[in-house]
Amino acid sequence: MDTTLFSEYIPLKSIEITDRFWRQKQELVRTQVIPYQYEALHDRIDGAEASYSVSNFIKAADIVKKLSNGEDVPVYPADKWHYDEANADECAFHGWVFQDSDVYKWIEAVGYSLSSHPDAVLQKKAEDIIDLICSSQMENGYLDTLYIINNRDGIFSNLKDFHELYCFGHLTEAAISFYNSTGDRRLLNAACRFADLICETFGETKIKGYPGHEIAEMALVKLYDVTLNRQYLETARFFINERGKKPYYYDTVLGRTTVEDNYHYNQAHCEPRHQHEAVGHAVRGVYLYSGMADIAKRYRDDELSTACQKILSNIINRKMYITGGIGSTALGEAFSFDYDLPNDLAYSETCASVGLIFFARRMLEIAPDSDTADTVERALYNTVLSGMSEDGRSFFYANPLEVLPEASHKDERKRHIKPTRQKWFGCACCPPNVARLISSIGEYCCTQNDSTVYIHQYIGAKITSSKGRLEILSDYLSIGKICVRIFPEKEFTLAVRIPKWCDSYTFSHKCEIRNGYAYFKIFDETQIDIQFEISVRMIKCSNRVRANIGKIAVTRGPFIYCLEEVDNGADLQMLSIDKNTSFSLDGQYIIAEGYREKDCESLYETFKEAEKSDVKLKFIPYYKWANRGENEMCVYIRAE
Amino acid sequence: MDTTLFSEYIPLKSIEITDRFWRQKQELVRTQVIPYQYEALHDRIDGAEASYSVSNFIKAADIVKKLSNGEDVPVYPADKWHYDEANADECAFHGWVFQDSDVYKWIEAVGYSLSSHPDAVLQKKAEDIIDLICSSQMENGYLDTLYIINNRDGIFSNLKDFHELYCFGHLTEAAISFYNSTGDRRLLNAACRFADLICETFGETKIKGYPGHEIAEMALVKLYDVTLNRQYLETARFFINERGKKPYYYDTVLGRTTVEDNYHYNQAHCEPRHQHEAVGHAVRGVYLYSGMADIAKRYRDDELSTACQKILSNIINRKMYITGGIGSTALGEAFSFDYDLPNDLAYSETCASVGLIFFARRMLEIAPDSDTADTVERALYNTVLSGMSEDGRSFFYANPLEVLPEASHKDERKRHIKPTRQKWFGCACCPPNVARLISSIGEYCCTQNDSTVYIHQYIGAKITSSKGRLEILSDYLSIGKICVRIFPEKEFTLAVRIPKWCDSYTFSHKCEIRNGYAYFKIFDETQIDIQFEISVRMIKCSNRVRANIGKIAVTRGPFIYCLEEVDNGADLQMLSIDKNTSFSLDGQYIIAEGYREKDCESLYETFKEAEKSDVKLKFIPYYKWANRGENEMCVYIRAE
Repeated sequence: MDTTLFSEYIPLKSIEITDRFWRQKQELVRTQVIPYQYEALHDRIDGAEASYSVSNFIKAADIVKKLSNGEDVPVYPADKWHYDEANADECAFHGWVFQDSDVYKWIEAVGYSLSSHPDAVLQKKAEDIIDLICSSQMENGYLDTLYIINNRDGIFSNLKDFHELYCFGHLTEAAISFYNSTGDRRLLNAACRFADLICETFGETKIKGYPGHEIAEMALVKLYDVTLNRQYLETARFFINERGKKPYYYDTVLGRTTVEDNYHYNQAHCEPRHQHEAVGHAVRGVYLYSGMADIAKRYRDDELSTACQKILSNIINRKMYITGGIGSTALGEAFSFDYDLPNDLAYSETCASVGLIFFARRMLEIAPDSDTADTVERALYNTVLSGMSEDGRSFFYANPLEVLPEASHKDERKRHIKPTRQKWFGCACCPPNVARLISSIGEYCCTQNDSTVYIHQYIGAKITSSKGRLEILSDYLSIGKICVRIFPEKEFTLAVRIPKWCDSYTFSHKCEIRNGYAYFKIFDETQIDIQFEISVRMIKCSNRVRANIGKIAVTRGPFIYCLEEVDNGADLQMLSIDKNTSFSLDGQYIIAEGYREKDCESLYETFKEAEKSDVKLKFIPYYKWANRGENEMCVYIRAE
Repeated sequence: MDTTLFSEYIPLKSIEITDRFWRQKQELVRTQVIPYQYEALHDRIDGAEASYSVSNFIKAADIVKKLSNGEDVPVYPADKWHYDEANADECAFHGWVFQDSDVYKWIEAVGYSLSSHPDAVLQKKAEDIIDLICSSQMENGYLDTLYIINNRDGIFSNLKDFHELYCFGHLTEAAISFYNSTGDRRLLNAACRFADLICETFGETKIKGYPGHEIAEMALVKLYDVTLNRQYLETARFFINERGKKPYYYDTVLGRTTVEDNYHYNQAHCEPRHQHEAVGHAVRGVYLYSGMADIAKRYRDDELSTACQKILSNIINRKMYITGGIGSTALGEAFSFDYDLPNDLAYSETCASVGLIFFARRMLEIAPDSDTADTVERALYNTVLSGMSEDGRSFFYANPLEVLPEASHKDERKRHIKPTRQKWFGCACCPPNVARLISSIGEYCCTQNDSTVYIHQYIGAKITSSKGRLEILSDYLSIGKICVRIFPEKEFTLAVRIPKWCDSYTFSHKCEIRNGYAYFKIFDETQIDIQFEISVRMIKCSNRVRANIGKIAVTRGPFIYCLEEVDNGADLQMLSIDKNTSFSLDGQYIIAEGYREKDCESLYETFKEAEKSDVKLKFIPYYKWANRGENEMCVYIRAE
């Protein structure tokens, strides 16, 4: 590892987002998603699945109080994934085993939002919930309402299937976000107390377990970064080093002999440092890989860093949709085998792309690389944004690349493919994940080290770096133009990413180009003008991807485009694009020349050239699809 | 209905198959499948799942004996689909709830085989099993080992989920086959006794139930044809008329309120005479439709006949693979929606194509129609034959049109897609279904009525019709040539099907052509020579089928062809066929000109024309695939 390439992201308090596109998204989160989610957490949304999140904390707080008074409180067995009204005593825990995390993700998003948009009323709401959470914490620091309510004797007894360490991770991320924006330490203290208990419980000479659903690893590193308590870092490393060792901890504790293959699901089939392929549940995967990258950097662990690099390369080059979606199979919400990227069966979960961005940013902190930064961009502008409707009120879990509503309604193989966004989910991981990423988008734009400030994402912002102020004025999305005004306090190097989609660019200043970044020496106050030629491109997919042979996708800048029925008529499969077409822009549309085959009703007939008529194809950005009612959509189109 | 078009199939005892192709298949069944299955029924095959079929009958016979001696015998709850060794008392019923049917299907195949190839040793084996079956029958005629062993108080209490009436149907078909070939009435008597009990139990003024898995309907009609006991016909009609009436019988009995949609699975969502689309579990569907056609003809029920015609048309024109496979989704082994015919996820169960042939033959008995006879041919020469390996020792359940072994191994969505045939199945419906169809293939060749003999399938045979002897000498499969020698006892009309795949043909005699059949007046002994021009054809699929746009399939005569990796290299998706290719024959192969794209490893790149090299494509008949080890296969190929 070349430690001179290490850098750190610039925290939110040092970035003010001014970008029109992203301000609007952040406002949607602030004015729509956060209030809506607040109501959802309190089970006050008509017609949506109940969350039970807040009510679980109320129950847990009551129990903790009674326990501290020496009262006897009944327990309920913690034996299943989902506790619904029909199956549980009213006093028992309700919802999914990871339900606490929804509250935490909401607080995390609120924290980010407050950092750019102070709001006393919202802050008070969050503080009230934080009070409730703190009063739910047990005397020893333990904090997971499922076990507090249902099974206090079973705490940490099934790390594989239940989610205590996962909830801890989200608690910690929420605590740090809220602390960073408000200076309020209450939730941070709660997170530290729970972290202390975890550090006392797990380790080389203690219980040798590790999380079933990863996230505690990266959360502990973040907590170390805030508190500088080395124990947190050590425990994060322990979780990563212990994972996948044989005999399996899970087997030992649960008294089972599991077929090794099953542990691919949660990346515990072998030690992370020996993993070179992205496998299993995609969200779990990228959360683990994020933690691995954190540890690799902080311990300068070459082997772990190499594993991360190989896994990222496997994702980018063999397992990622053109939209930045990952996890191509709904079964296990998992990575499939290399080049298995079906369009109409894609899972491509919103959360997985959020997690991919977490992982990629950490890899950029190890070494700047434009492929990695391009991956952040690809996932962000396509799958992540697709996850939320334009009005911020409905959400996708799965982000397919081809949708026929009839198939979603009638074909059970596609029951995960929704042709319209849903209001809310009982298992509500995606909406709050989108909310927290959008609210914290500033953390993904730039990194800095002793010598250099890196601009990875061109988002309009005012930045206070360690080298002085920067102002990024960005017309990147519309015309590929960026202007960076620099008010340096000392000499430094500015490095800006050259996106892979751009073949031709101009810079106003002399620069050196390395690994897809342009490096400028900055001495005085100056303004660097950047022009990336942004043209419509036809992209083809490797012919190892069976679904896309003979087809192309239309892109412009970071945006992947798609065809919708509302613009192009039904039976999108009958359309093809003229491979020599010119393209024009018309508002949000890209217009191209193409053909529509005449409908051929006869199921089987002797081959003859299809009769075709000329049509104008109208493409819209992929992330905008399904905002005009239920209709067909596809990204890839046959080229003729 | 035009009753002058009604005809009846010519029974096996009046047909001697002389056809080389079919003799060889029948010999495989006789020398390989029947003996192998006999061992399987006795759980004597190493490495195969246990059948338990014979042992269940031994247990049931013992219980029946004890009961007749007034002894008390314990029962076990009949509460699940599959009873395996781990979960059941050794004395309890083992296997699937429909396990008895495997024994019956074996006897049925043996009966057909004996009719063309007497074999005293085999007959004795069947007689011994028949003795065992007869001694398992309860005094009141009831005969289903699951309930006899496990739950004698629960008989007929769950028609929806369990399979007593299904097993009755197979018992009856076996009994008739064995009686027809040997004259032995023992099993026929047992079937009649069970049928009598069923007729006493179910009806307008009795229990208003009907089978969950259909087959009893067509079996009762067959039993009526043999015995002329009108009650059997009436009860078959009752089952069809009662099905789908509201409130649902199943709901009433089981005390549930089921969502109506669930009953699409077993075609009970509405009354059969109001059904116009093939839905639900495909095998159940075609078994029901067969019974409907039987009843429509015998009662001259126009409405029911119209329903059958619409359903058949829906299958042929919108829901059938080019291979004659039906039931395109593995979930529920079911018909999907119109034009949803994915190649790589196809279920296309062997049994469903066998059942489609049952249905189509009954429709031909109502009115000759070359589309219907073509459907028999399509299913027979492709999906049904694909179901069995060339050595008769392994079998397919699912018959996909595109296979990547890596996907079958790694992608759980394709776990039903086996890249090689399996030895035997615990749920062994397909192998014995293939065996009974091949052994009785003679029944599918010709039908006759007062005026006309129809030849629907060109299989070499010596036939004793009601109009005199016919000899069919067939080189149909290889060169499209058939010679029919006729030794009439009176004047009659001979009608022969003109296959849809043939554009050009010559007949040695003058004829009239109607509905795809050529009609010849026969006065004296004569010989009619038929020449169908049999050329290689490229077939395209309706562009409503999303999977096949821009692709073609290669066919010759009744055979659909495919590409295998062993002949064409890996990554079959990289191949395309020159749309102007000429074709040549080389042994079993069809050779064509085509292209192979150069492997393009980069996942996403700017579109440019693919680099291609010229290749010779080698196609083999679809039914022969997977006889040379595990490898890729596809039917459709891009045309350029």
